[in-house]
Amino acid sequence: MIKKPVIAVTMGDPAGVGPEICLRVLSCREVLDSCTPVVFGHAGVLRRCAELLGLELTAAVVSNREPFVVAEGEGAAVVDIPTLDANALVPGQIDSQTGRASYEYVQRAIEAALRREVSAVVTAPLSKEALSRAGIDYPGHTEIFALRTAASRWCMLQYAETIACSFVTVHVGYAEVPEFLTADRVLEVIRLSAEGLERIRKKNPRIVVCGLNPHAGENGLFGEGEEERVIAPAVAAARQEGLDVVGPLPADTAFLEERRRNTDVFVCMYHDQGHIPVKALAFDTAVNVTLGLPIVRTSVDHGTALDIAWQGKARSSSLRNAVALAIKLSD
Amino acid sequence: MIKKPVIAVTMGDPAGVGPEICLRVLSCREVLDSCTPVVFGHAGVLRRCAELLGLELTAAVVSNREPFVVAEGEGAAVVDIPTLDANALVPGQIDSQTGRASYEYVQRAIEAALRREVSAVVTAPLSKEALSRAGIDYPGHTEIFALRTAASRWCMLQYAETIACSFVTVHVGYAEVPEFLTADRVLEVIRLSAEGLERIRKKNPRIVVCGLNPHAGENGLFGEGEEERVIAPAVAAARQEGLDVVGPLPADTAFLEERRRNTDVFVCMYHDQGHIPVKALAFDTAVNVTLGLPIVRTSVDHGTALDIAWQGKARSSSLRNAVALAIKLSD
Repeated sequence: MIKKPVIAVTMGDPAGVGPEICLRVLSCREVLDSCTPVVFGHAGVLRRCAELLGLELTAAVVSNREPFVVAEGEGAAVVDIPTLDANALVPGQIDSQTGRASYEYVQRAIEAALRREVSAVVTAPLSKEALSRAGIDYPGHTEIFALRTAASRWCMLQYAETIACSFVTVHVGYAEVPEFLTADRVLEVIRLSAEGLERIRKKNPRIVVCGLNPHAGENGLFGEGEEERVIAPAVAAARQEGLDVVGPLPADTAFLEERRRNTDVFVCMYHDQGHIPVKALAFDTAVNVTLGLPIVRTSVDHGTALDIAWQGKARSSSLRNAVALAIKLSD
Repeated sequence: MIKKPVIAVTMGDPAGVGPEICLRVLSCREVLDSCTPVVFGHAGVLRRCAELLGLELTAAVVSNREPFVVAEGEGAAVVDIPTLDANALVPGQIDSQTGRASYEYVQRAIEAALRREVSAVVTAPLSKEALSRAGIDYPGHTEIFALRTAASRWCMLQYAETIACSFVTVHVGYAEVPEFLTADRVLEVIRLSAEGLERIRKKNPRIVVCGLNPHAGENGLFGEGEEERVIAPAVAAARQEGLDVVGPLPADTAFLEERRRNTDVFVCMYHDQGHIPVKALAFDTAVNVTLGLPIVRTSVDHGTALDIAWQGKARSSSLRNAVALAIKLSD
């Protein structure tokens, strides 16, 4: 019998849809068949949410104070981090306390992954606003993981079976993007994308690198030569290393159906360049991955959805997809 | 009997796919039933292309020197502008002469439209590189039309039945976009989009305005407040005028399937923000429209495709769609 991987799932902001999608994943047959899911969150919050929605919390509850162990044959577990008053929590209403709690779940899960107690960390959505109110200033999950694992190089990947995009820059303002573009960084993201996709697809991936300007600059007609100065040299260097990479290509025609079928990953220069096509084409299946970390990390591709939180409406498909991809990446 | 509109179709760069798609449109039953297409181009080039590909040129050839008249009951015509040596032309190879010729076709068609001899101008693709070699410095068709018709306000619209995007900026480098964004310009494009879509769809259109930064700035977290300073005031002013408009919304979730179904037009801040989803979702049907001109102008949504020019491979569906939309806009 092959030992199933233990996959940490962080509960996300308690006031958001995190608790209910974690509950669904903890009792999902398909998930339990492929791994041992361990939710890093708050057992009291999960119980309250389960009661409200007519769900069940059947997973073993493990104290956060003891060293973390999942017993042989254990189906699922919750690592209890009860830093919040579960009964005072107002569903749909984030604040500094829910922000701080969600941050603690992530920290503990990262520690467990670094100690190899879990094979991967999958994250449910947190609220950047709640984090900020708690005085925790990260633009997103990805940056927390990068800092807490002391990663020297990393990038975001949005992955779906039909389209995958990696990012040279992510959470920076539109106008700041050009100053972050260097040939070294583009080459780094090409390499990380190659490694990541090879792990997922078990083959030498075909990589397309997008340009920055309209029509990829159209031979210097638009922009400040970013394609020639920065992107093309990185693509040339990656080809020298034996990678199957083309570019810079105009971003608008890069994502045409025919090219999508023949491309494993698109290296994008900025957030919306890749997020627009991924969400337009594969909103329901896309998984957020951080490539280059010393641990495996995937995430749901949606936010806290406060407007429908604790109402039983949130679908857990994205979280299940994130767990499935985490298992693949842990192989 | 309703008089059919006369629609000018420019031949585009003679070395590209323009001649063959014009030939196909000139003999397309569906086109001939709905309008009188008049190609502004070079009869000699069309004849040579027809011969090579086994097509026929049955349209009446009209001299460019005489005042332009389409005879009653005329099915189709070519306004002959023979400024090029048709036999010296090398298919697939653009140069200053093909560039200059393609520019002349456009100029003559614009004149005919301004004189109301034609109801609309539909353009086949020209090569910006060929134009540039001919010393004609326009970033694209759209700018030629704006200048030649002395339009004081205009914007590009990419239109398909399933998705339509209008643009606050188009052919400018990535880094230059922010300096072109003003509340006045955003409001102008919202108004032009409302007018255009009302004409096409005969109803008060639902308009979504995209943000510039990731997550539309996420309340000032990313960017330099372009959403608050520039975009939001324009949206507020447009609502004051009674327009059905929301925004600024995060561009990555703006194009989700559900929102697409409930939106008539997306106002985009820059070229790739709208071109990426339009081409990814509706490459085969999208039509390029210039809104705000004193004449109606639509265009194919593809380039000269020099690699397949004069080989009979180019599909004329985009040009036919452009003609169909031009007829709708001429109503």
